[in-house]
Amino acid sequence: MIQLHYIEIDTRGRNEMVDITDEVRGIVTQSDITDGQVLIFVPGSTGALSTIEYEPGLIKDFPDLMERMIPEKKYYHHNETWHDGNGHSHLRATLVGPSLTVPFENRKLILGTWQQIVFLEFDNKPHRRKIAVQLMGE
Amino acid sequence: MIQLHYIEIDTRGRNEMVDITDEVRGIVTQSDITDGQVLIFVPGSTGALSTIEYEPGLIKDFPDLMERMIPEKKYYHHNETWHDGNGHSHLRATLVGPSLTVPFENRKLILGTWQQIVFLEFDNKPHRRKIAVQLMGE
Amino acid sequence: MIQLHYIEIDTRGRNEMVDITDEVRGIVTQSDITDGQVLIFVPGSTGALSTIEYEPGLIKDFPDLMERMIPEKKYYHHNETWHDGNGHSHLRATLVGPSLTVPFENRKLILGTWQQIVFLEFDNKPHRRKIAVQLMGE
Repeated sequence: MIQLHYIEIDTRGRNEMVDITDEVRGIVTQSDITDGQVLIFVPGSTGALSTIEYEPGLIKDFPDLMERMIPEKKYYHHNETWHDGNGHSHLRATLVGPSLTVPFENRKLILGTWQQIVFLEFDNKPHRRKIAVQLMGE
Repeated sequence: MIQLHYIEIDTRGRNEMVDITDEVRGIVTQSDITDGQVLIFVPGSTGALSTIEYEPGLIKDFPDLMERMIPEKKYYHHNETWHDGNGHSHLRATLVGPSLTVPFENRKLILGTWQQIVFLEFDNKPHRRKIAVQLMGE
Repeated sequence: MIQLHYIEIDTRGRNEMVDITDEVRGIVTQSDITDGQVLIFVPGSTGALSTIEYEPGLIKDFPDLMERMIPEKKYYHHNETWHDGNGHSHLRATLVGPSLTVPFENRKLILGTWQQIVFLEFDNKPHRRKIAVQLMGE
Protein backbone atom coordinates (compact mmCIF):
# COMPACT_ATOMS: atom_id res chain seq x y z
CA MET A 1 0.00 0.00 0.00
CA ILE A 2 1.18 3.46 -0.86
CA GLN A 3 -0.07 6.96 -0.08
CA LEU A 4 1.17 10.38 -1.09
CA HIS A 5 0.61 13.48 1.03
CA TYR A 6 2.08 16.97 1.10
CA ILE A 7 3.11 19.24 3.94
CA GLU A 8 2.97 22.96 3.16
CA ILE A 9 5.13 25.37 5.13
CA ASP A 10 6.06 29.02 4.78
CA THR A 11 9.71 29.77 5.40
CA ARG A 12 11.53 33.06 5.93
CA GLY A 13 14.60 31.87 4.03
CA ARG A 14 18.25 32.36 5.03
CA ASN A 15 19.29 29.21 6.79
CA GLU A 16 16.06 28.52 8.65
CA MET A 17 15.40 25.14 10.25
CA VAL A 18 11.74 24.07 10.52
CA ASP A 19 10.61 21.20 12.75
CA ILE A 20 8.10 19.15 10.69
CA THR A 21 7.93 16.13 13.03
CA ASP A 22 4.34 16.83 14.15
CA GLU A 23 3.11 17.16 10.56
CA VAL A 24 4.77 13.88 9.53
CA ARG A 25 3.54 12.16 12.69
CA GLY A 26 0.01 13.40 12.03
CA ILE A 27 0.01 11.85 8.56
CA VAL A 28 1.34 8.52 9.88
CA THR A 29 -1.11 8.42 12.81
CA GLN A 30 -4.18 9.02 10.61
CA SER A 31 -3.15 6.57 7.90
CA ASP A 32 -4.60 3.10 7.40
CA ILE A 33 -1.06 1.80 6.92
CA THR A 34 0.05 0.46 10.30
CA ASP A 35 3.60 -0.72 9.58
CA GLY A 36 5.97 0.69 7.02
CA GLN A 37 8.12 3.66 6.24
CA VAL A 38 7.64 7.29 5.38
CA LEU A 39 9.70 8.93 2.66
CA ILE A 40 10.01 12.69 3.01
CA PHE A 41 11.25 14.49 -0.10
CA VAL A 42 11.87 18.14 -1.01
CA PRO A 43 11.00 18.93 -4.63
CA GLY A 44 13.42 21.82 -5.10
CA SER A 45 17.15 22.45 -5.16
CA THR A 46 17.63 24.91 -2.28
CA GLY A 47 16.12 22.95 0.61
CA ALA A 48 17.11 19.75 2.40
CA LEU A 49 16.00 17.29 5.08
CA SER A 50 17.63 15.65 8.07
CA THR A 51 17.01 14.98 11.76
CA ILE A 52 18.35 16.93 14.73
CA GLU A 53 17.62 17.62 18.37
CA TYR A 54 15.47 20.70 17.83
CA GLU A 55 16.58 22.92 20.71
CA PRO A 56 17.56 26.64 20.77
CA GLY A 57 21.31 25.94 20.70
CA LEU A 58 21.45 23.64 17.71
CA ILE A 59 18.92 25.83 15.88
CA LYS A 60 21.79 28.35 15.76
CA ASP A 61 24.71 25.90 15.54
CA PHE A 62 23.69 24.06 12.37
CA PRO A 63 23.15 27.25 10.32
CA ASP A 64 26.47 28.55 11.73
CA LEU A 65 28.16 25.37 10.53
CA MET A 66 26.68 25.75 7.06
CA GLU A 67 27.85 29.36 6.88
CA ARG A 68 31.34 28.33 8.01
CA MET A 69 31.60 25.47 5.49
CA ILE A 70 29.78 27.14 2.58
CA PRO A 71 29.76 30.94 3.11
CA GLU A 72 27.06 33.04 1.48
CA LYS A 73 29.48 35.86 0.55
CA LYS A 74 31.88 33.83 -1.53
CA TYR A 75 32.30 33.72 -5.28
CA TYR A 76 30.22 30.96 -6.92
CA HIS A 77 30.01 30.32 -10.66
CA HIS A 78 26.28 29.80 -10.18
CA ASN A 79 25.86 33.54 -9.88
CA GLU A 80 27.00 34.01 -13.48
CA THR A 81 24.07 31.89 -14.65
CA TRP A 82 21.23 33.48 -12.68
CA HIS A 83 22.62 36.47 -10.73
CA ASP A 84 20.42 35.51 -7.78
CA GLY A 85 23.18 35.26 -5.18
CA ASN A 86 22.15 31.84 -3.89
CA GLY A 87 25.00 29.60 -5.02
CA HIS A 88 25.62 28.71 -1.37
CA SER A 89 21.96 27.64 -1.02
CA HIS A 90 22.28 25.07 -3.80
CA LEU A 91 25.56 23.67 -2.51
CA ARG A 92 24.24 23.27 1.04
CA ALA A 93 21.10 21.52 -0.26
CA THR A 94 23.08 19.08 -2.42
CA LEU A 95 25.44 18.27 0.44
CA VAL A 96 22.73 17.56 3.04
CA GLY A 97 20.38 15.90 0.55
CA PRO A 98 16.69 16.13 -0.41
CA SER A 99 15.35 12.83 0.95
CA LEU A 100 14.89 11.14 4.32
CA THR A 101 13.18 7.84 5.15
CA VAL A 102 11.90 6.99 8.63
CA PRO A 103 10.41 3.61 9.60
CA PHE A 104 7.21 3.29 11.62
CA GLU A 105 5.50 0.48 13.48
CA ASN A 106 1.94 0.42 14.75
CA ARG A 107 1.54 3.96 13.30
CA LYS A 108 4.39 5.24 15.53
CA LEU A 109 7.51 6.79 14.04
CA ILE A 110 10.72 5.07 15.13
CA LEU A 111 12.62 8.17 16.23
CA GLY A 112 14.90 8.84 19.18
CA THR A 113 13.42 10.81 22.10
CA TRP A 114 15.49 13.88 21.21
CA GLN A 115 15.33 13.49 17.44
CA GLN A 116 13.15 15.71 15.29
CA ILE A 117 12.61 15.75 11.52
CA VAL A 118 13.65 19.12 10.08
CA PHE A 119 13.28 20.91 6.79
CA LEU A 120 16.32 23.08 6.10
CA GLU A 121 15.55 26.22 4.12
CA PHE A 122 18.81 27.28 2.52
CA ASP A 123 17.50 29.80 -0.02
CA ASN A 124 18.06 33.51 0.51
CA LYS A 125 14.38 34.41 0.22
CA PRO A 126 11.10 33.22 1.78
CA HIS A 127 9.33 30.27 0.19
CA ARG A 128 6.08 28.39 0.36
CA ARG A 129 7.43 24.84 0.43
CA LYS A 130 5.40 21.78 -0.55
CA ILE A 131 7.19 18.76 0.89
CA ALA A 132 6.20 15.28 -0.33
CA VAL A 133 5.41 12.69 2.36
CA GLN A 134 4.94 9.21 0.96
CA LEU A 135 3.85 6.27 3.11
CA MET A 136 4.56 2.72 2.07
CA GLY A 137 3.66 -0.41 4.01
CA GLU A 138 0.81 -2.65 5.02
CA MET B 1 5.50 -4.67 -6.70
CA ILE B 2 9.21 -4.31 -7.10
CA GLN B 3 11.56 -3.97 -10.07
CA LEU B 4 15.32 -3.71 -10.33
CA HIS B 5 17.07 -1.96 -13.21
CA TYR B 6 20.57 -0.68 -13.83
CA ILE B 7 21.89 2.48 -15.46
CA GLU B 8 25.34 2.17 -16.99
CA ILE B 9 27.48 5.26 -17.45
CA ASP B 10 31.09 5.93 -18.34
CA THR B 11 32.77 8.60 -16.26
CA ARG B 12 36.05 10.43 -16.75
CA GLY B 13 36.74 10.49 -13.00
CA ARG B 14 38.06 13.46 -10.97
CA ASN B 15 35.06 15.11 -9.47
CA GLU B 16 32.69 14.73 -12.41
CA MET B 17 28.96 15.27 -11.98
CA VAL B 18 26.66 13.27 -14.31
CA ASP B 19 22.99 14.12 -14.80
CA ILE B 20 21.09 10.79 -14.74
CA THR B 21 17.59 12.26 -14.50
CA ASP B 22 16.55 11.22 -18.02
CA GLU B 23 17.70 7.64 -17.47
CA VAL B 24 15.79 7.37 -14.17
CA ARG B 25 12.73 9.05 -15.70
CA GLY B 26 12.85 6.63 -18.65
CA ILE B 27 12.73 3.64 -16.31
CA VAL B 28 9.84 5.10 -14.31
CA THR B 29 7.87 6.08 -17.44
CA GLN B 30 8.10 2.63 -19.01
CA SER B 31 7.32 0.71 -15.82
CA ASP B 32 3.97 -0.89 -15.01
CA ILE B 33 4.24 0.58 -11.51
CA THR B 34 2.24 3.82 -11.58
CA ASP B 35 2.70 5.12 -8.02
CA GLY B 36 5.64 4.54 -5.75
CA GLN B 37 9.24 5.44 -5.22
CA VAL B 38 12.53 4.89 -6.94
CA LEU B 39 15.63 4.03 -4.96
CA ILE B 40 18.90 4.91 -6.71
CA PHE B 41 21.99 3.28 -5.23
CA VAL B 42 25.71 3.30 -6.11
CA PRO B 43 27.38 -0.06 -5.50
CA GLY B 44 30.91 1.25 -4.87
CA SER B 45 32.75 3.39 -2.34
CA THR B 46 34.01 6.30 -4.49
CA GLY B 47 30.75 7.57 -6.00
CA ALA B 48 27.67 9.24 -4.53
CA LEU B 49 24.18 10.51 -5.39
CA SER B 50 22.25 13.69 -4.74
CA THR B 51 20.15 16.27 -6.54
CA ILE B 52 21.23 19.67 -7.85
CA GLU B 53 20.26 22.29 -10.39
CA TYR B 54 22.39 20.98 -13.24
CA GLU B 55 23.68 24.20 -14.78
CA PRO B 56 27.22 25.23 -15.87
CA GLY B 57 27.92 27.25 -12.73
CA LEU B 58 27.05 24.62 -10.14
CA ILE B 59 28.75 21.94 -12.24
CA LYS B 60 31.96 23.75 -11.26
CA ASP B 61 30.91 24.96 -7.80
CA PHE B 62 30.10 21.59 -6.23
CA PRO B 63 33.41 19.98 -7.23
CA ASP B 64 35.17 23.16 -6.02
CA LEU B 65 33.43 22.78 -2.67
CA MET B 66 34.49 19.15 -2.38
CA GLU B 67 38.09 20.07 -3.16
CA ARG B 68 37.98 22.86 -0.58
CA MET B 69 36.51 20.64 2.15
CA ILE B 70 38.36 17.41 1.31
CA PRO B 71 41.46 18.27 -0.78
CA GLU B 72 42.94 15.64 -3.08
CA LYS B 73 46.55 16.56 -2.22
CA LYS B 74 46.37 16.04 1.51
CA TYR B 75 47.76 13.19 3.60
CA TYR B 76 45.25 10.38 4.12
CA HIS B 77 45.97 7.12 5.98
CA HIS B 78 44.04 5.33 3.22
CA ASN B 79 47.05 5.76 0.96
CA GLU B 80 49.16 3.54 3.22
CA THR B 81 46.73 0.67 2.58
CA TRP B 82 46.42 0.84 -1.21
CA HIS B 83 48.78 3.57 -2.49
CA ASP B 84 46.13 4.60 -5.03
CA GLY B 85 45.92 8.26 -4.04
CA ASN B 86 42.15 8.33 -3.73
CA GLY B 87 41.58 8.78 -0.01
CA HIS B 88 39.73 12.02 -0.78
CA SER B 89 37.39 10.10 -3.15
CA HIS B 90 36.26 7.73 -0.41
CA LEU B 91 35.72 10.49 2.14
CA ARG B 92 33.65 12.57 -0.27
CA ALA B 93 31.53 9.54 -1.18
CA THR B 94 30.86 8.63 2.45
CA LEU B 95 29.94 12.21 3.32
CA VAL B 96 27.46 12.71 0.45
CA GLY B 97 26.12 9.15 0.63
CA PRO B 98 25.38 6.31 -1.81
CA SER B 99 21.58 6.28 -1.82
CA LEU B 100 18.74 8.57 -2.89
CA THR B 101 15.00 7.91 -2.96
CA VAL B 102 12.57 9.92 -5.10
CA PRO B 103 8.78 9.48 -5.02
CA PHE B 104 6.70 9.28 -8.19
CA GLU B 105 3.00 9.51 -8.97
CA ASN B 106 1.26 8.52 -12.16
CA ARG B 107 4.72 7.50 -13.52
CA LYS B 108 6.00 11.07 -13.03
CA LEU B 109 8.96 11.81 -10.76
CA ILE B 110 8.17 14.32 -8.02
CA LEU B 111 11.11 16.67 -8.59
CA GLY B 112 11.43 20.44 -8.57
CA THR B 113 11.59 22.17 -11.95
CA TRP B 114 15.27 22.97 -11.47
CA GLN B 115 16.22 19.78 -9.69
CA GLN B 116 18.19 17.03 -11.41
CA ILE B 117 19.39 13.66 -10.12
CA VAL B 118 23.19 13.45 -10.31
CA PHE B 119 25.79 10.77 -9.95
CA LEU B 120 28.97 12.18 -8.41
CA GLU B 121 32.14 10.47 -9.59
CA PHE B 122 34.75 11.15 -6.94
CA ASP B 123 37.39 8.62 -7.98
CA ASN B 124 40.63 9.79 -9.61
CA LYS B 125 40.24 7.57 -12.66
CA PRO B 126 37.53 6.83 -15.24
CA HIS B 127 34.93 4.18 -14.41
CA ARG B 128 32.13 2.26 -16.03
CA ARG B 129 29.48 2.69 -13.33
CA LYS B 130 26.48 0.41 -12.93
CA ILE B 131 23.95 2.25 -10.78
CA ALA B 132 21.02 0.31 -9.29
CA VAL B 133 17.54 1.77 -9.85
CA GLN B 134 14.86 -0.04 -7.89
CA LEU B 135 11.17 0.77 -8.26
CA MET B 136 8.69 -0.08 -5.54
CA GLY B 137 4.99 0.65 -5.60
CA GLU B 138 1.67 -0.40 -7.10
CA MET C 1 5.75 -7.53 2.72
CA ILE C 2 7.48 -5.68 5.50
CA GLN C 3 9.63 -6.76 8.45
CA LEU C 4 11.25 -4.81 11.25
CA HIS C 5 14.40 -5.96 13.02
CA TYR C 6 16.93 -4.33 15.31
CA ILE C 7 20.71 -4.54 15.51
CA GLU C 8 22.19 -3.87 18.95
CA ILE C 9 25.76 -2.69 19.25
CA ASP C 10 27.91 -1.28 22.04
CA THR C 11 30.05 1.68 21.06
CA ARG C 12 32.94 3.35 22.86
CA GLY C 13 31.87 6.80 21.63
CA ARG C 14 34.16 9.55 20.28
CA ASN C 15 34.04 9.25 16.54
CA GLU C 16 33.95 5.46 16.28
CA MET C 17 32.99 3.74 13.03
CA VAL C 18 31.32 0.31 13.34
CA ASP C 19 30.97 -2.08 10.41
CA ILE C 20 27.41 -3.49 10.56
CA THR C 21 27.40 -5.12 7.12
CA ASP C 22 27.39 -8.70 8.45
CA GLU C 23 24.49 -7.98 10.80
CA VAL C 24 22.41 -6.42 8.00
CA ARG C 25 23.37 -9.21 5.60
CA GLY C 26 22.37 -11.83 8.17
CA ILE C 27 18.89 -10.32 8.49
CA VAL C 28 18.44 -10.17 4.70
CA THR C 29 19.74 -13.73 4.16
CA GLN C 30 17.38 -15.25 6.73
CA SER C 31 14.32 -13.31 5.60
CA ASP C 32 11.47 -14.74 3.52
CA ILE C 33 11.59 -11.56 1.41
CA THR C 34 13.76 -12.39 -1.61
CA ASP C 35 13.76 -9.08 -3.52
CA GLY C 36 13.45 -5.63 -2.05
CA GLN C 37 15.28 -3.05 -0.04
CA VAL C 38 16.54 -2.65 3.47
CA LEU C 39 16.16 0.64 5.32
CA ILE C 40 18.66 1.16 8.11
CA PHE C 41 17.79 3.94 10.55
CA VAL C 42 19.38 5.33 13.72
CA PRO C 43 16.81 6.41 16.32
CA GLY C 44 18.95 9.06 18.01
CA SER C 45 20.54 12.40 17.24
CA THR C 46 24.26 11.71 17.75
CA GLY C 47 24.79 8.77 15.37
CA ALA C 48 24.64 8.40 11.59
CA LEU C 49 24.85 5.87 8.76
CA SER C 50 26.73 5.65 5.49
CA THR C 51 28.90 3.26 3.50
CA ILE C 52 32.69 3.22 3.26
CA GLU C 53 35.55 0.89 2.42
CA TYR C 54 36.17 -0.36 5.94
CA GLU C 55 39.96 -0.52 6.05
CA PRO C 56 42.46 0.71 8.71
CA GLY C 57 43.31 3.91 6.82
CA LEU C 58 39.80 5.23 6.26
CA ILE C 59 38.81 4.16 9.78
CA LYS C 60 41.13 7.00 10.86
CA ASP C 61 40.57 9.36 7.92
CA PHE C 62 36.82 9.80 8.22
CA PRO C 63 36.91 10.68 11.95
CA ASP C 64 39.83 13.02 11.18
CA LEU C 65 37.71 14.72 8.53
CA MET C 66 34.81 15.15 10.94
CA GLU C 67 37.13 16.66 13.56
CA ARG C 68 38.58 19.02 10.95
CA MET C 69 35.17 20.15 9.67
CA ILE C 70 33.31 20.17 13.00
CA PRO C 71 35.86 20.32 15.86
CA GLU C 72 34.93 19.00 19.29
CA LYS C 73 36.65 21.86 21.14
CA LYS C 74 34.77 24.73 19.56
CA TYR C 75 32.04 26.89 21.04
CA TYR C 76 28.54 25.57 20.28
CA HIS C 77 25.32 27.12 21.54
CA HIS C 78 24.09 23.58 22.23
CA ASN C 79 26.30 23.49 25.29
CA GLU C 80 24.28 26.29 26.91
CA THR C 81 21.19 24.07 26.77
CA TRP C 82 22.59 20.82 28.17
CA HIS C 83 26.24 21.42 29.21
CA ASP C 84 27.12 17.97 27.89
CA GLY C 85 29.87 19.09 25.51
CA ASN C 86 28.53 17.19 22.51
CA GLY C 87 27.39 19.96 20.15
CA HIS C 88 29.84 18.63 17.56
CA SER C 89 28.24 15.15 17.82
CA HIS C 90 24.82 16.49 16.90
CA LEU C 91 26.10 18.57 14.00
CA ARG C 92 28.06 15.66 12.53
CA ALA C 93 25.03 13.36 12.82
CA THR C 94 22.70 15.85 11.11
CA LEU C 95 25.18 16.43 8.30
CA VAL C 96 25.81 12.74 7.50
CA GLY C 97 22.19 11.72 8.13
CA PRO C 98 20.35 9.00 10.08
CA SER C 99 19.03 6.81 7.25
CA LEU C 100 20.42 4.59 4.50
CA THR C 101 18.59 2.33 2.05
CA VAL C 102 20.27 -0.57 0.23
CA PRO C 103 18.56 -2.71 -2.44
CA PHE C 104 18.82 -6.50 -2.46
CA GLU C 105 18.00 -9.20 -4.99
CA ASN C 106 17.70 -12.91 -4.35
CA ARG C 107 18.50 -12.16 -0.66
CA LYS C 108 21.85 -10.64 -1.65
CA LEU C 109 22.70 -7.02 -0.81
CA ILE C 110 23.63 -4.95 -3.86
CA LEU C 111 26.88 -3.49 -2.53
CA GLY C 112 30.25 -2.86 -4.13
CA THR C 113 33.03 -5.33 -3.31
CA TRP C 114 34.83 -2.76 -1.15
CA GLN C 115 31.73 -1.13 0.30
CA GLN C 116 30.63 -1.71 3.88
CA ILE C 117 27.66 -0.35 5.81
CA VAL C 118 28.83 1.63 8.83
CA PHE C 119 27.28 3.09 11.92
CA LEU C 120 29.03 6.32 12.90
CA GLU C 121 29.07 6.95 16.64
CA PHE C 122 29.60 10.68 17.08
CA ASP C 123 28.68 11.04 20.74
CA ASN C 124 31.38 11.70 23.33
CA LYS C 125 30.41 8.74 25.50
CA PRO C 126 29.78 5.00 25.02
CA HIS C 127 26.30 3.90 23.97
CA ARG C 128 24.26 0.79 23.54
CA ARG C 129 22.74 1.51 20.12
CA LYS C 130 19.57 -0.10 18.80
CA ILE C 131 19.54 0.41 15.04
CA ALA C 132 16.32 -0.25 13.10
CA VAL C 133 16.60 -2.51 10.05
CA GLN C 134 13.40 -2.64 8.02
CA LEU C 135 12.97 -4.96 5.04
CA MET C 136 10.41 -4.24 2.35
CA GLY C 137 9.80 -6.31 -0.74
CA GLU C 138 8.29 -9.51 -2.01
